[in-house]
Amino acid sequence: MGTLRLPDVVPPPTEDCGRLKKAFQGWGTDEAAIISVLGHRNESQRRKIRETYQQLYNESLIDSLQSELSGDFRKSVILWTYDPPERDARLANEALKSRNKGINQLQVIVEIACASSPHHLVAVRHAYCSLYDCSLEEDITSNVSLPLQKILVGLVRSYRYDREVVDFDVANLEAAKLHEAIKAKQLDHDDIVWILGTRNAFQLKGTFQCYKQSYGNPIHEDIMRCGKGILESILKVVVWCLDTPEKHFAEVIRASIVGLGTDEDSLTRAIVTRAEIDMMKIRGEYFNMNKTSLDNAVIDDTSGDYKDFLMTLLGAKL
Amino acid sequence: MGTLRLPDVVPPPTEDCGRLKKAFQGWGTDEAAIISVLGHRNESQRRKIRETYQQLYNESLIDSLQSELSGDFRKSVILWTYDPPERDARLANEALKSRNKGINQLQVIVEIACASSPHHLVAVRHAYCSLYDCSLEEDITSNVSLPLQKILVGLVRSYRYDREVVDFDVANLEAAKLHEAIKAKQLDHDDIVWILGTRNAFQLKGTFQCYKQSYGNPIHEDIMRCGKGILESILKVVVWCLDTPEKHFAEVIRASIVGLGTDEDSLTRAIVTRAEIDMMKIRGEYFNMNKTSLDNAVIDDTSGDYKDFLMTLLGAKL
Repeated sequence: MGTLRLPDVVPPPTEDCGRLKKAFQGWGTDEAAIISVLGHRNESQRRKIRETYQQLYNESLIDSLQSELSGDFRKSVILWTYDPPERDARLANEALKSRNKGINQLQVIVEIACASSPHHLVAVRHAYCSLYDCSLEEDITSNVSLPLQKILVGLVRSYRYDREVVDFDVANLEAAKLHEAIKAKQLDHDDIVWILGTRNAFQLKGTFQCYKQSYGNPIHEDIMRCGKGILESILKVVVWCLDTPEKHFAEVIRASIVGLGTDEDSLTRAIVTRAEIDMMKIRGEYFNMNKTSLDNAVIDDTSGDYKDFLMTLLGAKL
Repeated sequence: MGTLRLPDVVPPPTEDCGRLKKAFQGWGTDEAAIISVLGHRNESQRRKIRETYQQLYNESLIDSLQSELSGDFRKSVILWTYDPPERDARLANEALKSRNKGINQLQVIVEIACASSPHHLVAVRHAYCSLYDCSLEEDITSNVSLPLQKILVGLVRSYRYDREVVDFDVANLEAAKLHEAIKAKQLDHDDIVWILGTRNAFQLKGTFQCYKQSYGNPIHEDIMRCGKGILESILKVVVWCLDTPEKHFAEVIRASIVGLGTDEDSLTRAIVTRAEIDMMKIRGEYFNMNKTSLDNAVIDDTSGDYKDFLMTLLGAKL
């Protein structure tokens, strides 16, 4: 369940577009109006607003936001306004083209491949081809070296059967295969790549349960014992995104806030991409993990329009 | 360009459904009426007929065809009436579940993966999950052994960028990689699987050109020199389906007809799946390869309603 709040009566897109256009006009920009419109519209309503805006004013809403806003507020509003597959294709491209391709960057690709529906993943692959004139897996291969490349390509090419079906014989068998590979510290073993990149999330939850029952530890802990490299970290993210995406995103938000300074890109991504999906669960998980409220943490670490916008997506009152 | 002929004025679906219903009623079935309706409607028109039939008579058109028709005629009309992604998912499943999994069966999967649009391939994967409660790649893995399994899984997981873009530096580089692997007779080499399962068809046409220029032979001939097994045959089909699908399908039709007896399943599949796509080109290629007409060959080797239906899809007069 998401945290996005919609008004009881949603105004027609022409009215929303009029308010946005007015917010951009004259000296200064009316950020509050932009938040009050876009921050309370769901995916399909935002799509209609984008289309209507283009028809009415013969210009792109994204371009207007780009020229009128700035900083983290701009980045978060624009990510929220893109069609989700295009948004994720852009996030994946940014990750692949960044100079530093650490866990903070590459986990974006795992989130898209493992914490989304098969339909959404395919839509992202389609959007990626349209935007960048090559496929997502071609860009992974050009920009990420083995063995990570093998894992990521395997994940983005999946089309997981998405009904709630678990075969516990298969789960036990594959838990054993995963255990063998992890014990041998072969984290890019074909069995690991195939199982994590092919089986559906329900089946894999069963496999992870069997793993813990048979071998004593949660699988992600055994993975992390193999070493301290990015391969171990990415595989932990894979397991969490498949098994308990709310834990993964609660951890992304915590890591973005903890210590000196804030990693605004990660904070924005987690809230923008999950506000309509499972932010309620993420908020609960955040509290379980940190014994403090996610909302207070965001309020403490952000400010201004950026804070207001994130809090709006987190369900602050209309 | 396809060979399907549509009437100048297409009747409304209710009228088509009425004619079909009438053809099923009473003693005997009016096969000519069925051919005259379904054999002259394109994909979206057939979809509307299926939907309208279900609404009007509260029964499935496919079920009615199943109970009223028989033999190869029934099989061809039903394949033609299915939504193409469902049709191809069923063909793939039939191939994977057949006792004899030779080239005639497994090439069906290559056709779906390499001679269709990326969008169609994804739609087939989606239909497969809905019909069989597991993914296409899971069923390939359970039913086909290595090294073929590796090739087929790599192909069905592709989402090829489908615009006409060729980078000749990449083409030369990858022609060399393919040549290395073929020379070493390692036909399931990671490079082969990755290049043929990831690059778009235009890029691959460039790569195959570079291969011939640099190494003297067409790549499929060098592949066939590696041995006489199914692996070589499948890879030849992969190359043809990507490079010149019309050659592949002309060859499928020729092989289905040549010698004693006819392989009706292959003949039906080639004509039903390509009648709306590139049957004109296939007809031309068939003539180039065999110096006889495809239409005459089909007429000589088939009979009755089955012949009439295939000839209708091949563009026989309304």
